[in-house]
Amino acid sequence: VKPKVETQAAPKRLSYEEKAALAKNEALKRLYNTMVAKKSNLSVAMDVNSTEKMLALVDEIGPHICCLKTHVDVLDVWNDGVAKSLTDLAEKHNFLIFEDRKFADIGNTVVSQYSGGVYKISEWSDIVNAHIVPGPGIVDGLKQVGLGQNKGLLLLAEMSSAGTMAKGSYTEETVRVADENPDFVIGFISVNPNSWTKKSKDRSLVHMTPGIKLQKGGDGLGQQYNDPKSAIARGSDVLIVGRGVYKAEDPKSSAAEYQKAGWEAYLSEL
Amino acid sequence: VKPKVETQAAPKRLSYEEKAALAKNEALKRLYNTMVAKKSNLSVAMDVNSTEKMLALVDEIGPHICCLKTHVDVLDVWNDGVAKSLTDLAEKHNFLIFEDRKFADIGNTVVSQYSGGVYKISEWSDIVNAHIVPGPGIVDGLKQVGLGQNKGLLLLAEMSSAGTMAKGSYTEETVRVADENPDFVIGFISVNPNSWTKKSKDRSLVHMTPGIKLQKGGDGLGQQYNDPKSAIARGSDVLIVGRGVYKAEDPKSSAAEYQKAGWEAYLSEL
Repeated sequence: VKPKVETQAAPKRLSYEEKAALAKNEALKRLYNTMVAKKSNLSVAMDVNSTEKMLALVDEIGPHICCLKTHVDVLDVWNDGVAKSLTDLAEKHNFLIFEDRKFADIGNTVVSQYSGGVYKISEWSDIVNAHIVPGPGIVDGLKQVGLGQNKGLLLLAEMSSAGTMAKGSYTEETVRVADENPDFVIGFISVNPNSWTKKSKDRSLVHMTPGIKLQKGGDGLGQQYNDPKSAIARGSDVLIVGRGVYKAEDPKSSAAEYQKAGWEAYLSEL
Repeated sequence: VKPKVETQAAPKRLSYEEKAALAKNEALKRLYNTMVAKKSNLSVAMDVNSTEKMLALVDEIGPHICCLKTHVDVLDVWNDGVAKSLTDLAEKHNFLIFEDRKFADIGNTVVSQYSGGVYKISEWSDIVNAHIVPGPGIVDGLKQVGLGQNKGLLLLAEMSSAGTMAKGSYTEETVRVADENPDFVIGFISVNPNSWTKKSKDRSLVHMTPGIKLQKGGDGLGQQYNDPKSAIARGSDVLIVGRGVYKAEDPKSSAAEYQKAGWEAYLSEL
């Protein structure tokens, strides 16, 4: 007689509502609530160099995104007025702002880089991200600035670019650092989190995935694209689309298309 | 009869003049020539937040340094006039400018971050640095901007902060990436290069070491200090001093003291 083997099913994917309920950080809770309210897991990286064009495009695609990803340091004009325009748009269209600064310095330096300088990133962004190369002191430094202001931090656990060193034991270390800072680290930049051997026990954490495009391919400088459906199937929660939207002939309808594709992919996984 | 054992001596340290002669990159050659001319292997990290104070301090300590290390994104004021003041000081006192940007994004993004935005880093800096976390595409991107303008790139092979992931196979990969780009990568941010099992065959490359202080200790956010003599003995070429100079009661005499200590340590190793 063959013994009965009970196959253990993989833990069911949590809905964004369930994740919101578990979230320990204000910015993370707002992110999930926004996603549910707008039926959007789309983040657009609006990487144009003209500030004027960036603001106009964000106003166009605003209804379709849960989160705007910025690279403030590629814009040709920046001042407090631009920051105000950006936060006004975030309020008008109900999205969070994620400045993709990729902090990567020692704790003492990132304190100033996050709060000071010309950009004063902590004043207008809800979310920033950091590499753990310098060690956990980088999280301590950013937390000094951001925690009291209800900001959230993403750690770069994986990257979409060819030959990235963010893999294996490096990825595992980001999970460890995240678990040590449940009040401030809200999740990861990741590509294939379902494949990780060591996962966080905190199921509220968010996985945001860059390099998303409906057409596969690369850019000649190491970027490798992945489509919405397979990214969601690999465990992603938020899809980051850059050139697929801002270089499209019609960015607004392209954003609508990515919003639909991402949301349907999510629903099909529940 | 015991056989004679020939002990193989470690290869002798090259002088800065010898390294200058081997250098494949214009910025690197200029760096070594400046060091020799000024008898200085001192780089000061002038990490104050006031632009006015930064410029005044750089004018004071200028005669003692071969290279100024900047964090442009912590300064309260920035415009083309400030950039001009900085390059005027570099000319007046004969030093190179190293913007410690720690680029850490994919190739396509760093192209804009290096050349564009409010800071236009490539216009006024001689040297920048990058993490290899995103993979070698980051070097391709920066090279597109910097090579034609005779700029140089340092790769972060090690860091001075506690718990850094820049070690072991990560450090080895930076050596590999450097060796693939001999025209543009001029050396490393490193802490103990003499201990590396895999070294570059290119002996012109420079090792610049942060976290140097005459008094040992830390800062509560992960920084770990090391003194000039032991850093040079570990294979460093350029000593980067931050708080030891800009927080000193008398930054100018402190810079002079570090210049002397670093130069004597270098001479004693030849």
